[in-house]
Amino acid sequence: MRNINEDTITQAVLASMDGCGDKRLRTIMTSLVEHLHSFAREVKLTEDEWFQAIKFLTEVGHITDDKRQEFILLSDTLGLSMLVTAQSNTKPAGCTESTVFGPFFVEGAPEYDNGEDISNGAKGEPCFVQGQVRGNDGEPIPGAMIDVWQSDENGFYDVQVPAKSADLHEHRARGKLRSGADGRFHFRSILAQPYPIPHDGPVGRMLEALGRHPWRPAHLHFMIQAPGFETLITHVFRNGDRYLDSDAVFGVRSTLIADWVRHKAGTAPDGTRIAVPFYTLDFDFVLNPAGAAR
Amino acid sequence: MRNINEDTITQAVLASMDGCGDKRLRTIMTSLVEHLHSFAREVKLTEDEWFQAIKFLTEVGHITDDKRQEFILLSDTLGLSMLVTAQSNTKPAGCTESTVFGPFFVEGAPEYDNGEDISNGAKGEPCFVQGQVRGNDGEPIPGAMIDVWQSDENGFYDVQVPAKSADLHEHRARGKLRSGADGRFHFRSILAQPYPIPHDGPVGRMLEALGRHPWRPAHLHFMIQAPGFETLITHVFRNGDRYLDSDAVFGVRSTLIADWVRHKAGTAPDGTRIAVPFYTLDFDFVLNPAGAAR
Repeated sequence: MRNINEDTITQAVLASMDGCGDKRLRTIMTSLVEHLHSFAREVKLTEDEWFQAIKFLTEVGHITDDKRQEFILLSDTLGLSMLVTAQSNTKPAGCTESTVFGPFFVEGAPEYDNGEDISNGAKGEPCFVQGQVRGNDGEPIPGAMIDVWQSDENGFYDVQVPAKSADLHEHRARGKLRSGADGRFHFRSILAQPYPIPHDGPVGRMLEALGRHPWRPAHLHFMIQAPGFETLITHVFRNGDRYLDSDAVFGVRSTLIADWVRHKAGTAPDGTRIAVPFYTLDFDFVLNPAGAAR
Repeated sequence: MRNINEDTITQAVLASMDGCGDKRLRTIMTSLVEHLHSFAREVKLTEDEWFQAIKFLTEVGHITDDKRQEFILLSDTLGLSMLVTAQSNTKPAGCTESTVFGPFFVEGAPEYDNGEDISNGAKGEPCFVQGQVRGNDGEPIPGAMIDVWQSDENGFYDVQVPAKSADLHEHRARGKLRSGADGRFHFRSILAQPYPIPHDGPVGRMLEALGRHPWRPAHLHFMIQAPGFETLITHVFRNGDRYLDSDAVFGVRSTLIADWVRHKAGTAPDGTRIAVPFYTLDFDFVLNPAGAAR
């Protein structure tokens, strides 16, 4: 340890963890240090570049607060989030695939009955969503808890809209439903639209420097929980969206793309008369039994 | 890009940078993404572990301010800082080696004449330092600007001591000197002591979890600048220190270890009478000509 140079430094850092009592932590940190050092050697990182990285991470830290998580955004845009999601959720064929959780889930969304309008005043074209929750053998799953959340026609989630005092606890275009005895669910909401991830901070500047755009294709978020099954966290993506091939957070999986069907003004699936065009989406979810072989 | 999984994600992220106009940035980010993904695959990082990492980095960001740089501390303790320093400062044999800059340098330290006491009230046993600044051919370098900074007997730098209003701009145990016509310099200060890096934050908790201590062996910091030569940023370490083999930031190089010689109370090198024991340190610095082959 007295003869540190660019060749011996890695072994010195690894040896410093000899006293670590947490085997998993040591495995993780060993791999992290090896790859961090290999990266710095491979590109021959300069002192100036290192200092730019320190400043960048400092800015990511300072813009992060209880409403904005720029580190998750950084992980998402570097594909790390999707990689961890994918390798943590390998499933048998036939099960609905998982994708990234994203930063816009909120605990304690309002509960709705099937058929209700979850938009709660969020602006957008009407959209009627229905489907079934099933197990991998085709059996309906009754009573599954279905969390759904989405952005409005301007591409904002309710938590991104500057809060007026009256709106402070207003949940819009998000809610919880339960599947019925036949595993089916249906609700009214608004049409999902593509939107840019928050790009007025350091991650936005990084994307710009890399020649990348910040857009995500239109999607609905779902989290579905049922006893005896693995929790499913996923999106349904809107077929035809121009950003399906360049999602800023790499969340698209082809099995999660579905058609939103456009209808002329008339009678909606719930029997009401709609004076403007509306959309319908039909999508089923197949859950993996808990403890199933991966 | 519609078929993202744990195998295809890396190629998708790399392809997203096709429009990047900055060749060096693209090289760096390509290597970073490859190593980041390889790390996550190699340890099969779980979603819980990923979230713990997000929380850790958020804490590192939130404790960082204009007086404390926890990201530099993180880089230092993972050996990245020393690696970048070492690979950026390869020099011909005979030149003084570089080591990490550290977070405690301050612009605008007071200037002193040779022979003056730079401690300026910082507590510690008296220490008299002298040496010569030379080029690699042995020629003295006159007029070199020598920045020196160090901690006090309690292990604190002046910037770490809680500021009282009167002390706010008080620089202690740091200063600037110039080498004389013969390249020589000498000054009085206090004995350097080992000290722990700031360990009351997330990096301190990381070290504890890894079974590592936060201590650095006693050292003086030097930055030496002279026209026609590369700037030298280095330390001189105190021989015999118990932490020489386990420096928390991996900065020790054997050529930078020197003897601090203890003397009984009596006549100091500057001719004054000292009523307590004192120390002397003699260390020469050899600068690398600017633009020299590496």
